[in-house]
Amino acid sequence: MYPVETCNHSLSHILAAAVLRVLPDVKLGIGPAIENGFYYDFLPTKENPLKESLFPKIEKEMRSILKKGGAFTRTEKTIAEATGFFETAGQPFKAELIRELAEKGNQTVSFYASGDFTDLCQGPHVDKIEDLRTMAFTLDRIAGAYWQGSEKNPMLQRIYALSFPSKEALDTYVANREEAARRDHRVIGAEMKLFASLDAIGRGLPCLLPRGATLRRTLERFVVDEELRRGYQHVYTADLGRKELYVTSGHWGHYQESMYPVMQLGDDEIVLRPMSCPHHFTLYNSEPRSYRDLPMRFGEIVSQFRREQSGELTGLIRMMMFHLADGHIVCTPEQVESEFVGAVELVQYIMGRLGIAETISYRASLHDPDDKANKYEDNPEMWASSEAQLIGVLDRLGLQYKKAVGEAAFYGPKLDVQQKNAMGKEETIFTIQIDFVLPERFDMKYVGEDGKEHRPVAIHRSSIGCLERTMAFLIEHYAGMFPTWLAPVQVMVMSITDESIPYAKGLVDSLKKAGIRVEADLRNEKIGKKVREARLQRIPYLATVGKKEAESGSVSVRNRDTQAEATIPFETFQKNIVAENETYALKLGAEQAG
Amino acid sequence: MYPVETCNHSLSHILAAAVLRVLPDVKLGIGPAIENGFYYDFLPTKENPLKESLFPKIEKEMRSILKKGGAFTRTEKTIAEATGFFETAGQPFKAELIRELAEKGNQTVSFYASGDFTDLCQGPHVDKIEDLRTMAFTLDRIAGAYWQGSEKNPMLQRIYALSFPSKEALDTYVANREEAARRDHRVIGAEMKLFASLDAIGRGLPCLLPRGATLRRTLERFVVDEELRRGYQHVYTADLGRKELYVTSGHWGHYQESMYPVMQLGDDEIVLRPMSCPHHFTLYNSEPRSYRDLPMRFGEIVSQFRREQSGELTGLIRMMMFHLADGHIVCTPEQVESEFVGAVELVQYIMGRLGIAETISYRASLHDPDDKANKYEDNPEMWASSEAQLIGVLDRLGLQYKKAVGEAAFYGPKLDVQQKNAMGKEETIFTIQIDFVLPERFDMKYVGEDGKEHRPVAIHRSSIGCLERTMAFLIEHYAGMFPTWLAPVQVMVMSITDESIPYAKGLVDSLKKAGIRVEADLRNEKIGKKVREARLQRIPYLATVGKKEAESGSVSVRNRDTQAEATIPFETFQKNIVAENETYALKLGAEQAG
Repeated sequence: MYPVETCNHSLSHILAAAVLRVLPDVKLGIGPAIENGFYYDFLPTKENPLKESLFPKIEKEMRSILKKGGAFTRTEKTIAEATGFFETAGQPFKAELIRELAEKGNQTVSFYASGDFTDLCQGPHVDKIEDLRTMAFTLDRIAGAYWQGSEKNPMLQRIYALSFPSKEALDTYVANREEAARRDHRVIGAEMKLFASLDAIGRGLPCLLPRGATLRRTLERFVVDEELRRGYQHVYTADLGRKELYVTSGHWGHYQESMYPVMQLGDDEIVLRPMSCPHHFTLYNSEPRSYRDLPMRFGEIVSQFRREQSGELTGLIRMMMFHLADGHIVCTPEQVESEFVGAVELVQYIMGRLGIAETISYRASLHDPDDKANKYEDNPEMWASSEAQLIGVLDRLGLQYKKAVGEAAFYGPKLDVQQKNAMGKEETIFTIQIDFVLPERFDMKYVGEDGKEHRPVAIHRSSIGCLERTMAFLIEHYAGMFPTWLAPVQVMVMSITDESIPYAKGLVDSLKKAGIRVEADLRNEKIGKKVREARLQRIPYLATVGKKEAESGSVSVRNRDTQAEATIPFETFQKNIVAENETYALKLGAEQAG
Repeated sequence: MYPVETCNHSLSHILAAAVLRVLPDVKLGIGPAIENGFYYDFLPTKENPLKESLFPKIEKEMRSILKKGGAFTRTEKTIAEATGFFETAGQPFKAELIRELAEKGNQTVSFYASGDFTDLCQGPHVDKIEDLRTMAFTLDRIAGAYWQGSEKNPMLQRIYALSFPSKEALDTYVANREEAARRDHRVIGAEMKLFASLDAIGRGLPCLLPRGATLRRTLERFVVDEELRRGYQHVYTADLGRKELYVTSGHWGHYQESMYPVMQLGDDEIVLRPMSCPHHFTLYNSEPRSYRDLPMRFGEIVSQFRREQSGELTGLIRMMMFHLADGHIVCTPEQVESEFVGAVELVQYIMGRLGIAETISYRASLHDPDDKANKYEDNPEMWASSEAQLIGVLDRLGLQYKKAVGEAAFYGPKLDVQQKNAMGKEETIFTIQIDFVLPERFDMKYVGEDGKEHRPVAIHRSSIGCLERTMAFLIEHYAGMFPTWLAPVQVMVMSITDESIPYAKGLVDSLKKAGIRVEADLRNEKIGKKVREARLQRIPYLATVGKKEAESGSVSVRNRDTQAEATIPFETFQKNIVAENETYALKLGAEQAG
C-alpha cells in the first residue's frame, strides 16, 4: 500500500500525459498532490485552449494509459542533459525550474518516466502504472494560477482533480461538498433574501435585506439585553476618531495596513476606526476612577472598518465594514481571572442559546517571539506573564484548546473560539484578550483602597462576535432552518379559501400582538402551491386555515423540521410559540397541543 | 410712545458715550437695536481693554447721562465734513463707513448728537434723552465680532445689553433665559451623565454614556418596532458608498461641501455617506419590481456623516456624524398622497408618545427660484408640480404651516417639523420630502398593471428624526425629568437600614425581570443623604424600604414630579410602572395604589 499522496502525485503525471495527447502544444507547469486529490498546471496555446468540456476526452486518455500500464522509472540527469531535454521538448517552465535548481547548487536532477511521458520530479511514485487502477478520481475544475504564484508571470490553467483510494470515499467527499455548497451562506442568503452584495454600493459592503435585518436585530437585542443583565454598561461612541488615538494605542504602528486612509477635516486628522478600544479607554479616562468603580464593563455594538484585499472579500465573513458586539472590561489585576471567566461564561451561554456549542473549538493565540514583521509589542516580560496568565485560566477552566503561535493581538494573547464555515475554512467567531499594554499606553489609572494610583488591566472581548459573521455561521450551521426564535419569519398563515380570510387576518393580528413574526398568504391560489412556495422560505410553521379551522378556532400546522401536521387550538399554538421565543428553544414543537 | 427699537437704538448711543468716558481711547464700530436690546462694537487699546468687570462703571455713566438729559439732534453733513469730523476724532471705522456711503453715491450723511456724543446715524431716535428713563436695561456680556463681519478685518469687542420697556419685562426675560440655560441639554447632559464631548476622540463626535445610551436605545427600539408595525421593511446598508452613487443622486453636485473627503481604496473611490437615499434606491433597483410590490417602505437607523464648521458644532444638535431614523417610500404617483399622509401620521403619533406635539410648528420648505448658488435641481416644471402637490396635501390635512422659500432639499420640497431649542433657536426635528428627481436619476422602474414600465415617486422621511438631536430636544423639553418610559433609570431602590438589604435586593430582581430599569443604593448611609443624591439624577421614583416595608411587602415611594410620598404594596407599584411603560405614560403616578 502506497500513501495516498504518492498515488495522487503519480496520477498527476498520468493527467499531464493525457493532456499532452489531447493538446500536444501545451506547456507544462507543475503537478503536486493536494488534500483530496491533485492538480497540474498547463499553458495552452490560444488556438487550442483548455476547457472543462475536454474533461471526458482527457479522462478517457488517462484511463487508457492506466489500462496499458507500465513502470514508473526514475533516472538521474546532469543539469545540462536535463535542460537540453526540456528545450528540445519545448517546455520552457521545466527548463526554468532546472535553472533554479542549478542556482541552488544541484549538480543533477531526477526524472520520472511513465509510459511515453517523462517529467522532472523528485518523486516518490508508485512502482507501476497498474498500481493506480484502484484509485477513484475525477477531473474537477479549471482555475487560473500564475506561474510560481507571481502576478508578474504568465497565468497558467490549473486542472484540479479529486482523487481517493475508493469510489465510496470519492462519493462521500463529493456529497459532503455538495452539501457544504448548498449550505454556503451566500447561496442560502440569496435564496432566503437575507442579504445582497451590490457592487454599485461598493465591494465588501453587503446590504442586509429585510429578513436578514430581522435576524441581525434579533441577535443584537438578545446580546445587548444579556450584557446589560450581566453588568455591562452599554455606550455609543463615534465610528471615527482622531488619528492620534491610534498612534497612542499602537494600531498605527502595528496595524496601519488594515486601516482606512486618514481624512483631513479642517485641522484634524480623522480616521474610520478599525477597533473601538481607544474610544472606550478615552471614556474611561474622562473621569477619575476608584477601585470602587471597578470592574467597569463597557459594551457597544460597534461599526468597525477594515481594509481587506478585494480577493479576500467573502459574503458576510470578510467585509470592508462590519458590526462587532464589542466590549472592554477595565479591572484591577486581582479581578482579571474572574472577569476573564465571566467573559468565557457569557460566550458559552450565547453559544448554548444559538445551538452551536458543539461545533466550535478553542484556540490559545500566542505571540511569535521570532516575528520579524513588527506585528507585536516588543516587551518579552509582558508576553511571558500575560501568556502564562491566559494558559493558567484556560487550564483551570478545563477548556480543551490548541495553541497557535503568531495569532495573538499585537498587545496581548487571546482565547479564540474557532468555527469552521461550510467550505471547511476555520474562522474566529468570538475572542477574549488580556491586555497589559494599552492601559499603559493610555495612562489609565484608578485610585486603590490605599489611596494611591494604580494601573488597571483591560480585557477585550466579543460576546456574539461580528454580527454579520455570526449570521453567516448560523445560516450554514442550520442551512437556513433557524430555530423559531432566530427565524426571520416564524409563521406563515395561509387561507385555504377566500371565506377563511377574515379568520386568517384575525390570527395574524393576534400573533403580531404576541410579538411573533408572522406573514400571511391570502391569495386566491391552491393551498398546495402556497405551501410549496412557503417551504422554500424555510419558515418554521405553516399555518393553514379553512372553514373547519375558522369554526373551531384552530389552526392546521405544518412543522418545517419534522414535516408533522396537526390541528390544534389557535390559542395553544400561539402560546407554544411565545414559549419557544422566551426559552430560546432550539427545536421546533409549537404545533403540539400543550 | 416710541417703538421699542427706537429706544434701544438710542440707548446704544448712550452706551457708546458712556464707554468713551470710561475708556476714551476706544475706536467705535456700530450700535444697532436687536431683539431684546442692543449692542455696540468697540476696539479698545491693548493697555485699556474692555472687560465685563467695567460694566458697573459704564452703567453708572449711562445713568448719569440719562439723569442729565438733553435733546437728540439730527444734523446733515457733507461727505467731506463728516470724514473730517471722524478723522479729527480719531475714529477710523466711522470714516470708513462714510467712504462706503460716498461710493454708493451719497452726497450727505446724517449725524445724531446727544449730550457731548455725536455719531454717524440714520436714526430715528427719541427726541430727548429723558424719554429713555423708563427703559429697563442691563449690560449683558462681551463677545468678539469682526468689523463688518469679515475675518479679514480686526476683531472688535461687542457689548450686548438687554433692554425692555419695563422692569417686569426685563426680569421675565432674564428669568426665562436662566431657565433655558438650566434646560440646555449640554448642561443637563453633563449633570445626568447622559453624554460627553471628548476632544481626544474628535470634535463633534460626542459619546453617549450608559444613561444616554439607554435613552437612545429606548427611542430606537420604539421607532423601529412602530415602523415595522406600519409596514416598513427595515434594512441595514453600509455607512460607506461609491462616490458614483452621489454623482448619480446629485449630492456630489449640490451638496459636496457637506460631504467627507473621498477615500481611494484600491481602484474604488469610497465616501462616508451624507444621506442614505442612494443606498435604498440601489436596493430597490436590485430586483425587478411590480405595482404589486408598491408601496415599498424602506426603514433604517442610519449613520450619517456631515462636515460642519467647527464653530457650528453643538452638543447633540450639530455633530460630525449622527444617527437618523431614516426611511424612503417608493410608490406609484397615485399613492403619493396617502403615503405622505401616512408619514405625517407616524410623525404625529411619535410626537404624541414623546409628549412634544404641542411644542412644534410646521414649515413648508420650498425652493428659491432666484437661487444663484446651484442649490436646486434646475427643473421649473418639476418644482411647480411637486410644490403644488405638497401644498395641496398640507391644506387637505388642515395643518397650520408657514412657507419658507429657499429651504427645500435640492431634489424637492419638504414638510419640516420645527422645534425651538432651549436657547430659542429653531431647528428641524422631523422632515418629509416628495421627490420626483432621484427616481429619474436612478432610473427606478416598476411594471404597472398595464404590463409597461413606469417611474415611481420617492418620499424621503424621518420619523423620530436624528436620535441624538431628538434626545437633545427631549432633555430640554423635560429639563431631564423624563416620563417613566423614557427615563434611563426609572426606579432607585434605597435601603433604610442594613437589615432591609435582602428585601431591597429582592425588589430589584423583581423589577428587573419585569423589564424596569432599576438601580439600588444599599450603602450604609442616612436615608436623607441617599434621597438627596438620587433626586439630582431626576429618577421618577425613589423607593425606600425599611423594616416596616419588608414586613408588609410594601415600598415607600417618592414621586419625582408631585413630590408625593406613599406606601403601597410592592406588587401594585411594579404593576403600575409596567403599565406606564406599556402605555408610554407622560405623567408619573405609579406610586398610587391601583
